[in-house]
Amino acid sequence: MNPNALVQCVPNFSEGRRPEVIEAIAGAIAAQGVRVLSVSADADHNRCVITFVGEPGAVAQAAIRGAEVAMRLIDLNQHRGNHPRMGAVDVIPFVPISGCDMADCVALARRVGEALGNMGLPVFLYEEAATRPDRRNLADVRRGEFEGLREQIGVDPAKKPDFGPEKIHPTAGCTAVGARMPLIAFNVNLGTSDLSIAKKIAKAVRGSSGGLVHCKALGIPLADRGQVQVSMNMVNYKETPLHRAFELIKLEAERYGVPVVGSEIVGLVPVDALVGVARHYLRLEGFKSDQVLEKRLVE
Amino acid sequence: MNPNALVQCVPNFSEGRRPEVIEAIAGAIAAQGVRVLSVSADADHNRCVITFVGEPGAVAQAAIRGAEVAMRLIDLNQHRGNHPRMGAVDVIPFVPISGCDMADCVALARRVGEALGNMGLPVFLYEEAATRPDRRNLADVRRGEFEGLREQIGVDPAKKPDFGPEKIHPTAGCTAVGARMPLIAFNVNLGTSDLSIAKKIAKAVRGSSGGLVHCKALGIPLADRGQVQVSMNMVNYKETPLHRAFELIKLEAERYGVPVVGSEIVGLVPVDALVGVARHYLRLEGFKSDQVLEKRLVE
Repeated sequence: MNPNALVQCVPNFSEGRRPEVIEAIAGAIAAQGVRVLSVSADADHNRCVITFVGEPGAVAQAAIRGAEVAMRLIDLNQHRGNHPRMGAVDVIPFVPISGCDMADCVALARRVGEALGNMGLPVFLYEEAATRPDRRNLADVRRGEFEGLREQIGVDPAKKPDFGPEKIHPTAGCTAVGARMPLIAFNVNLGTSDLSIAKKIAKAVRGSSGGLVHCKALGIPLADRGQVQVSMNMVNYKETPLHRAFELIKLEAERYGVPVVGSEIVGLVPVDALVGVARHYLRLEGFKSDQVLEKRLVE
Repeated sequence: MNPNALVQCVPNFSEGRRPEVIEAIAGAIAAQGVRVLSVSADADHNRCVITFVGEPGAVAQAAIRGAEVAMRLIDLNQHRGNHPRMGAVDVIPFVPISGCDMADCVALARRVGEALGNMGLPVFLYEEAATRPDRRNLADVRRGEFEGLREQIGVDPAKKPDFGPEKIHPTAGCTAVGARMPLIAFNVNLGTSDLSIAKKIAKAVRGSSGGLVHCKALGIPLADRGQVQVSMNMVNYKETPLHRAFELIKLEAERYGVPVVGSEIVGLVPVDALVGVARHYLRLEGFKSDQVLEKRLVE
C-alpha cells in the first residue's frame, strides 16, 4: 500500500466509565504517530469509541497497541453496559480515506487480525473483510455477546475464528476486525411540513427499497423550521456519490411541487467526497485529488 | 492570527542558473519547518520561483531566511535575464490558504517587509498590502528595474520605500513584498471549433470588459480536440467563485447553441475553493470547511 495513504480507524472498547483506562488506551494509540480526532465515551453503554487517522503502518500499530492495553485493563467478566459487546476491544474497522482503497483496508484488517490472534484473541473478520457471508454484518458476528460466544467458540464450527485460538480469551473475549467505507451523514431539507412527502422520497432514494445501493434514508420532521428532511447515511460515497442522491431527491421533490431548500453534512467528510461533487457539477476532466493543495500537506 | 492557519508564500529570486545558489535558498526555507511544494528555475529568465506552505510564523521566518541567503549569494550587478527584476529576492507574495484571511496576509507582508528593511533592503509593499494605489500593480513598482531604481530611490519621492533605507542595496537591490489571493487556473471547453464564440464568451465573463471582477479570461483554440476553450485565471475564488464563472459561461454558450463539454483545473487548488463549489450545488447550510477530514490533519 502507498505509505503516504491515509487510513481512518474507529475502534470501540468496552470501557466507558474509568477515565484512566480510556486515557491509557488513547495514549497508547496516539504514541504511534497517528492523529487522534476524537475520543467519545458513554457511561451507560460502558463503551468508548476512538477515531484516529494516519498512514497505514502507524494506524495498524496504533490499533494493536490500543488492543494490548484494553486486553490488560478490561475484564469482560466485570463489564456491564447497555451496548452489546463481545471483547475488551470489541470491534476495529479500517476506513480508506485517501491514497488507498477498500482492498488495502481489507489487507490491513487481516494483518491486524492476525496480530491480535497471536496475542490470544479469537478474531472474526467482518464487513468488507469478511471471509464468509454470514460475517459481513457485525450484529450477526456479535450475537450471543461475550457470555454466549464463550460457550460457542471451539464448539460450533460456524464460530471458528479467522485468526487466534479456538477458545475465547478468559477476560478480553474476542474481537471483530474489518474494513468499511467512511460514512457521511447527509441531510436534505424540503420546503414543506408534509412528513409523508419526506418519507416517500426517502423510500425512493434508499437502497433497501429499490433506490441507490449505498444510501440509507429516513423522512423526519424539522418541527422548529416547519420543514421536513430526508436524513441519509451515505455508506459508500465513491459508488453512490452525494450529488446523485441530491439530484434524485430534487427530481422526486419536483413531482410533489416541493422545493429542496437546503442540505447539511453532519460531522466529518473526506475531501474526496467533495472533490467528487465539484468534478460532477463543473464537468471537470482529468482532475486528480492530489491537486488539492491541502492534500500535499498530509502526505 | 490563528497559529494553525495555513499561508502560502511564492517568493521569486533572481537566480535561475546556479543550482547551488537555488539549493541554498530552498534549503534555508525548508529548514524553517514549512513544506516546500515546488522549486522552479528558468535559465533564460535567470530566475527561480519557490512555492511553500506552512503556519504563519514559520512562513514569515522562511521568507526572511531565504531572502538573507539570496542577499548574500546574488549580485544584481552581474545578473542578466529575460525577466524584469529589481532585487536578489525580487518579490514575496503571501497567500491565505486556510484559517486566515487577506488582512492576516497583509499583516504578515508588513512584518516581513519591516524585517527585510532592517536587513538593509528597500521594501515596497504591493497588491493587497500596498500603501498607495500606484503600488498595487507589481509591474509599476518594478518599473526601471535594478539599474533604474538605483538612480530613483532616495531622489524621487514616489520611490520612497515602505521599509528600509532610502538607498538601494548595492548588490541585492530592492524587494516587493505583498499579499494576494491564490490564483486558480480554470478552463472551460466548448463543443465547437468556432474560436470567435470562445472569444466572445471570454469577453463576457472577464472583469476587464464588464464581467466577473476577479476573473481573467481568453478564448483559445484546442486544435487537437476540434474544440475551443475559455481559459481563465480566477484571482479571488472567494469573491468570484468557480461555479459562478462556470454557470455564466454555460449561459452564454447556450445563446450560441454551443454545449459546455468539460472543464479543467490546472495545478493546485485550495480545498476551500472546491468546498465552495459543493456548498453551492448541494445548497449546503452551515457547512464549515474544518468538517473536511483532511483539514484536521494539517492543523
